[in-house]
Amino acid sequence: MPENYISCQEKVAAELRGIIGNKSLHLYDMLKYHLGWQDAQGRSYGKNPGKFIRPTLCLLSCQAAGGNISQILPAAASLELIHNFSLIHDDIEDNSPERHHRATVWKLWGQPHAINAGDAMSIIANLTLLKLRDSGVSDAKVMRSMQIFSEACLEICEGQSLDITYEKRSDITIADYFRMATKKTAALLAASSSIGAYLATEDDEIVTSFYRFGENLGIAYQIHDDILGTWGMEEKTGKSVHSDIAQKKKTLPAAYGFAYSRDKDREALERFYSQESVSDKNITEVVEILNRLDTKNYAQKLERQYHHRALAELEATGIEPSRQAPLKELACFLLGRDF
Amino acid sequence: MPENYISCQEKVAAELRGIIGNKSLHLYDMLKYHLGWQDAQGRSYGKNPGKFIRPTLCLLSCQAAGGNISQILPAAASLELIHNFSLIHDDIEDNSPERHHRATVWKLWGQPHAINAGDAMSIIANLTLLKLRDSGVSDAKVMRSMQIFSEACLEICEGQSLDITYEKRSDITIADYFRMATKKTAALLAASSSIGAYLATEDDEIVTSFYRFGENLGIAYQIHDDILGTWGMEEKTGKSVHSDIAQKKKTLPAAYGFAYSRDKDREALERFYSQESVSDKNITEVVEILNRLDTKNYAQKLERQYHHRALAELEATGIEPSRQAPLKELACFLLGRDF
Repeated sequence: MPENYISCQEKVAAELRGIIGNKSLHLYDMLKYHLGWQDAQGRSYGKNPGKFIRPTLCLLSCQAAGGNISQILPAAASLELIHNFSLIHDDIEDNSPERHHRATVWKLWGQPHAINAGDAMSIIANLTLLKLRDSGVSDAKVMRSMQIFSEACLEICEGQSLDITYEKRSDITIADYFRMATKKTAALLAASSSIGAYLATEDDEIVTSFYRFGENLGIAYQIHDDILGTWGMEEKTGKSVHSDIAQKKKTLPAAYGFAYSRDKDREALERFYSQESVSDKNITEVVEILNRLDTKNYAQKLERQYHHRALAELEATGIEPSRQAPLKELACFLLGRDF
Repeated sequence: MPENYISCQEKVAAELRGIIGNKSLHLYDMLKYHLGWQDAQGRSYGKNPGKFIRPTLCLLSCQAAGGNISQILPAAASLELIHNFSLIHDDIEDNSPERHHRATVWKLWGQPHAINAGDAMSIIANLTLLKLRDSGVSDAKVMRSMQIFSEACLEICEGQSLDITYEKRSDITIADYFRMATKKTAALLAASSSIGAYLATEDDEIVTSFYRFGENLGIAYQIHDDILGTWGMEEKTGKSVHSDIAQKKKTLPAAYGFAYSRDKDREALERFYSQESVSDKNITEVVEILNRLDTKNYAQKLERQYHHRALAELEATGIEPSRQAPLKELACFLLGRDF
């Protein structure tokens, strides 16, 4: 029976436990806490497997391209670890005290430990990827996977650098936004999908299609996240309503507002995004401006566009539709749609 | 003519320029600044090649073991990059505003950019190591080098975690100190030397001897640095006199003081290392306690011991003495001795 999203999640969870579960230095308690396995006192939690989007994308891409999921679990685990490395550091950089209703690592143990814990997570991701050798993947394939993986990591840093730089600006264009989102979010989803396919097939064209599938899906996913962060519901996202506006994030809705607002509205946005602290009244004003421009509709349209481009790339592989199905299902899940 | 420390430095400098020199995002300006190539405004400096201890150790070990230095320059460069990754993050974690009389990256661009710049440096180090393939090193050898390299990086994080944890303690034993120094400093020197040798020879015993050579040299080097930080001269080290005491670092002299001071002296140390801020008078008192215990003499004796162990490991390789000479010279240079 082919694997699906749920069965992949379980395999990834077990693989991750095998890598970090038995390490005992204080350093690793912070990683286990961040991964949701322990509380701050080191006591075990119940199951908290996480969404595992990137590893699942990797495994299902491998399966679709005719490969063996069990063989490439280290690659899948390394993608989840590197994603979590970036979250630990992002939380410090964004000064976020909470993630998913839990205190962040820096909030509990201080910035020095948190920076170092993120570093350790990233190095363990590399070491995990190297474990592909033990499951019989050729040296050449492991190395090429490491190349794709590391290039994506560097793109994440480039995207994060843009994001930090954008914080102080209120003139971000839609092109600026796409440059950042492609690097910061889409690059790792593209790498996840293409590494999975690459470990299954020698066909470069298919691998490229999977790369583009992941990249387009990544952009759609980021836009989806922006929409939730701008108009979303707290119970669904763990974020407060309008949280991206409150944090003055340079989302697609914000970039659209900069591009299409005029006169007093433009001035109000300018003022809002350049002031130090913002009030609820300010936030409501921004939401009203974005709503007058029909921004949500624009963003949803773009999200659908990128979703469809992703699916078109998948279909371009020529892989039998029934074998594409688990990936299409994953895409729908990510974008909050029915399959 | 065999290469020596100076000629290796020049090759490493050129290799590093080839990797980062032409990158143009703002992110890379921070890396070029940190590496000493640019000032904070992005204007080029004159030559500032740095000491390049780790890459030089790698290249000279390769040469001693009969390998070709030109072929393994990417490995050497990656070691320098990973060392600088750890410096950028250490400066944030230690809250150090200056390094070598220049403002640190976080001091100039803020913590978020600095964390991200360190991350980028570490990922570029990985990508650089992968370039070994382009110079004809076998896939299996590149991968094994990556394994040694990544394991050393994880040890650095483990050592750094201990260091941060020790900051709040005034009961560090000499064994605690060695545990930290071995991980934080010696592991990367051990990896540098053994990767160099491994890329030159198939003989596992020789590679192991080079690992131990680097490890013992690394410990001697850390003790040497501790001595300079405790009693050193500002003009020589770029650190103020007694700077390690002022920063309450858990150096070998401090650990020795905890172990051998008694009564009022022990209480004074306890008080000093557990208070928030310290005065010059406090610092002088600590120096006097350490001096009464003849701590400098103890530390110098241990430094010599580890230096000799390093040389004994090198001799155990059975490599012709004239080919060991550049490495012995490097060791003497590191420890401030005449060759």
